[in-house]
Amino acid sequence: MVLELYLDLLSQPCRAVYIFAKKNGIPFQLRTVELLKGQHYTDSFAQVNPLKKVPALKDGDFILAESVAILLYLSRKYKAPDHWYPQDLQARARVDEYLSWQHTSLRSCCTRAMWQKMMFPVFLGHTVPPETLTSTLAELDRCLQLLEDKFLRDQPFLTGPHISVADLVAITELMHPVSAGCRVFESRPKLAAWRQRVEAAVGEDLFQEAHAVVLKAKDMPPLDPTLKETFKHSLKSLLQ
Amino acid sequence: MVLELYLDLLSQPCRAVYIFAKKNGIPFQLRTVELLKGQHYTDSFAQVNPLKKVPALKDGDFILAESVAILLYLSRKYKAPDHWYPQDLQARARVDEYLSWQHTSLRSCCTRAMWQKMMFPVFLGHTVPPETLTSTLAELDRCLQLLEDKFLRDQPFLTGPHISVADLVAITELMHPVSAGCRVFESRPKLAAWRQRVEAAVGEDLFQEAHAVVLKAKDMPPLDPTLKETFKHSLKSLLQ
Ligand SMILES: N[C@@H](CCC(=O)N[C@@H](CS)C(=O)NCC(=O)O)C(=O)O
Ligand SMILES: N[C@@H](CCC(=O)N[C@@H](CS)C(=O)NCC(=O)O)C(=O)O
Repeated sequence: MVLELYLDLLSQPCRAVYIFAKKNGIPFQLRTVELLKGQHYTDSFAQVNPLKKVPALKDGDFILAESVAILLYLSRKYKAPDHWYPQDLQARARVDEYLSWQHTSLRSCCTRAMWQKMMFPVFLGHTVPPETLTSTLAELDRCLQLLEDKFLRDQPFLTGPHISVADLVAITELMHPVSAGCRVFESRPKLAAWRQRVEAAVGEDLFQEAHAVVLKAKDMPPLDPTLKETFKHSLKSLLQ
Repeated sequence: MVLELYLDLLSQPCRAVYIFAKKNGIPFQLRTVELLKGQHYTDSFAQVNPLKKVPALKDGDFILAESVAILLYLSRKYKAPDHWYPQDLQARARVDEYLSWQHTSLRSCCTRAMWQKMMFPVFLGHTVPPETLTSTLAELDRCLQLLEDKFLRDQPFLTGPHISVADLVAITELMHPVSAGCRVFESRPKLAAWRQRVEAAVGEDLFQEAHAVVLKAKDMPPLDPTLKETFKHSLKSLLQ
């Protein structure tokens, strides 16, 4: 039975999983779960992932949530080239460190920056208080500084000389505020050069394909008003 | 050169690392970083961990932050028994899934529950708005339900028949609201039975030793007023 991946390419962790699977020639059936239509709240999707989030993986009877767990599962099962998740003890620990750090740092502020700057006005038809956006962008800036100073430093890639899953998780994250018009790379030449290296390593076509949806998000039609109630809880947390 | 662990046992992820190292007979030098004295903000600690958080590990020249990365590093380097982080592809993926999930769910609400219910009144001398605490406790309840329904289910341990690092990360987390008087286990017999199994597997003495500081936190002296400014940013995020 072929592997199934439940994804919406509007989601950063889904893009990381998608790029990893495609780049490594892993055969899978794409099951699209449209977040903006609330498809992750349906009973049929809750059967797959009770956490009601994408990405999710189904491999026969085995179901797995969480992008980091999915990336590591795929890299092990399909024996992806070592650089993605190196065997070397310390090199692997560097990847684990990044994958662990990002959850409560970049993840959180890239999502909020993208929603507050673009999705609230475009998709929900109202702007957010300017001081909320200012504080989110300041937090994004602090996270980007840590990304440079603590992780990238003077290395070609975030965790060493070769591309790893950490770079995929990071680049797909940063493209979120980029899609909203945030100038993430403009005043950061080291990070901009890293982005070029990651895009080249992934391949321009695959990179564009994975990001087509999010880079067109600003042109999407407004939210179906009957769904406003469904999204209430998620939207509240995006305004912090 | 002996391994150094920078810890404060008041911190949940530090307790998980401490228990893991002790239980597996890993020799280490304990470097205590007192969070409530702001020692993680000192220049000397920033040299060790620019993220200014505990836990951190120093193994010769190699420095590692992030509890999850530290636990996996220790389990690999010291070849801990397989059950802690199983070789089996799917069993390991279950552990990765939990370790990944907890960052933005249990981690966040257990910390806020403990601070809002106990630390703000005891340590900072002011209570939090009742609706803030109510909403935090409701979120804690939703997370505990997911912990039972999605992870524990009818298994002895969170990710299968044996104790793994996921159980350590979870139990040390739940003891945070317990220390503040939250009744986490009282109406949850499955979770209470799991707690007994985890405590027995860890060993009663080690479990008590690791939790002595947090279980006495309610008796601590109030914050040194000269440190109020230093903590301002962290405290704000704990009030959400
Ligand atoms: N920690 C999870 C996060 C997954 C996640 O938050 N997915 C978002 C899309 S980026 C989602 O499904 N959100 C729906 C919701 O929260 O209602 C991972 O890395 O896979
Ligand atoms: N994701 C990190 C979180 C570490 C963390 O937040 N540590 C807290 C103590 S539990 C800390 O050092 N806080 C100090 C601060 O944020 O100022 C891990 O799991 O190690």
